[in-house]
Amino acid sequence: MNDRFLRACRGESVDCTPVWFMRQAGRYMAEYRELRAKYSMLELCKTPELAVQVTLQPLRLGVDAAIVFSDILLPLEPMGVPVHFSKNDGPVLEPIRCQNDVDRLRIIDPQESLDYVLESIRILRRELNVPLIGFAGGPFTLASYLVEGGRTNTFVRTRRLMLAEPHIWHALMEKLSEVVRRHLRAQIDAGAQAVQLFDSWIGQLSPDDYTDSVASHVHKILHNIEMLDVPVIHFGTGTSTLLEAMAKTGGTVLGLDWRIPLDQGWRRIGWNRSVQGNLDPTTLFAPRHIIQQRASAILQAAANRNGHIFNLGHGILPETPETEVQALVDFVHQSSQR
Amino acid sequence: MNDRFLRACRGESVDCTPVWFMRQAGRYMAEYRELRAKYSMLELCKTPELAVQVTLQPLRLGVDAAIVFSDILLPLEPMGVPVHFSKNDGPVLEPIRCQNDVDRLRIIDPQESLDYVLESIRILRRELNVPLIGFAGGPFTLASYLVEGGRTNTFVRTRRLMLAEPHIWHALMEKLSEVVRRHLRAQIDAGAQAVQLFDSWIGQLSPDDYTDSVASHVHKILHNIEMLDVPVIHFGTGTSTLLEAMAKTGGTVLGLDWRIPLDQGWRRIGWNRSVQGNLDPTTLFAPRHIIQQRASAILQAAANRNGHIFNLGHGILPETPETEVQALVDFVHQSSQR
Repeated sequence: MNDRFLRACRGESVDCTPVWFMRQAGRYMAEYRELRAKYSMLELCKTPELAVQVTLQPLRLGVDAAIVFSDILLPLEPMGVPVHFSKNDGPVLEPIRCQNDVDRLRIIDPQESLDYVLESIRILRRELNVPLIGFAGGPFTLASYLVEGGRTNTFVRTRRLMLAEPHIWHALMEKLSEVVRRHLRAQIDAGAQAVQLFDSWIGQLSPDDYTDSVASHVHKILHNIEMLDVPVIHFGTGTSTLLEAMAKTGGTVLGLDWRIPLDQGWRRIGWNRSVQGNLDPTTLFAPRHIIQQRASAILQAAANRNGHIFNLGHGILPETPETEVQALVDFVHQSSQR
Repeated sequence: MNDRFLRACRGESVDCTPVWFMRQAGRYMAEYRELRAKYSMLELCKTPELAVQVTLQPLRLGVDAAIVFSDILLPLEPMGVPVHFSKNDGPVLEPIRCQNDVDRLRIIDPQESLDYVLESIRILRRELNVPLIGFAGGPFTLASYLVEGGRTNTFVRTRRLMLAEPHIWHALMEKLSEVVRRHLRAQIDAGAQAVQLFDSWIGQLSPDDYTDSVASHVHKILHNIEMLDVPVIHFGTGTSTLLEAMAKTGGTVLGLDWRIPLDQGWRRIGWNRSVQGNLDPTTLFAPRHIIQQRASAILQAAANRNGHIFNLGHGILPETPETEVQALVDFVHQSSQR
């Protein structure tokens, strides 16, 4: 059993720096594209045999962790908000905007509503010799999809609800946080050895808005998981001005995107906490010597300190050359030997 | 002549904090929408009488500066790349991706190719009793539109060119920077009393990429303008980790978005430089007492220091209620009396 990833989460010594990638099972892999030609995203997620197959695909690249194939929006359907995944516009759903809408949202029991995710996890644990990561979306990120009815560039409706109707906002965040908490716990009970909270769009907020409108909800989730002694990775993008507040909110590991040098971010959240990151995903489109130069710079910033998990600053992009992902895994392992 | 804005640019004392808004002439105003029902964006820009009319529309709100109605992509057409403004997808253009493409780009003479902008400026100077701001896009932001062929979320092609073919990248940046420099100078010669460089997407880059691939080009532009003793506002979004590098690159005034508290950003670029910002544009959708609370917080962070220009952290959003924009102008003026 390769436990580098879990050891790094806990800040323990490792033989070399562990590496995995957000969206490591995805469209950049030919095998994945073949399956997606036959099945929809939802079919893949909801059929444990297929989700397991997809989860396993990137493991031959030598990554040090697997992440269950799933989607942060899956809990919304059983909560009462069906999500339609359109080809070009991303997810589309009936927006939640008033107290009545929030009241109607169901606090689900993941054992019932999301059992397919848990079943994938149970199967995977029997097959894997690397640790398995479960995950869920952060409540702000989920709330933004719900309030906007899909993706947004401006977050106008989300911010309007947050500022103009704080009671509704907090009621929504409370329900989402409880669902996320339950979902993460259920994944841990099913066998996930670490979990990641993807609060991908949180960097949209100013530090004050984050502290006033989001932090307490995320804290409840993270604190509850940390009590179980299971590592939890707290991830967002564009978070350079939120790092101290996010660290205070919780997380065994903090995810850093590429906008902040790894050592600067690490210093700001405290060296006693672990960090994950932080290569710009677009770097993988460059020639190999450039990729390696940039990866080296990150490893040098980490200076072989315990508690660094190598990753990109955000998910692998769909057209990324698979050969470069493979080469990067090898490079990180080789050049970070202790 | 109301010269609060120019005095604040120069860090001189003012009777109250000047305020203007990026996109203060835009779709949030009924008068603007009426004109846009009759004319395309390009027709408005290219017909000085109409551009002047649009520029003047927001002045009755009491803002302390006018900004000529124009678009950062206008120089691309005479450079040899026609831009089609589609309704939903934003600007669409033939992408520039190889050395030949770059070689074909023309370094324009703005007196010939962009005379309509200059003519708008000449007319406006006769009519205005507030200072007039000219502007251009930053070379990185323009390059991203050129390389991607329009808007992008991922900047994959832009970064690939930057990393994989640095000679082509720098050749492209050099041409764009020279055009931008000429365009800003021509606007100043025509009467613009300050200029703003909109490098709106620069926050996509890590500090190292900014320094290696962008800073020297922007420096040439800004340095050339500063020699004329005309204030230049250096603006980007998501720039929290770039502020020191951007300050070093140049600018009389630095624009701050809402992700960083104004005083923190100001301290980092140095108190001897002026700052512009930094209310989250979505705040204008909140009830008035919340807008005023947030505006107050910014004014308190600025602490009536000389050198603060009140603005949003990015452009006014299309559905913003005009009454709130008006109320905000009054509020900033009243509550910042010296």
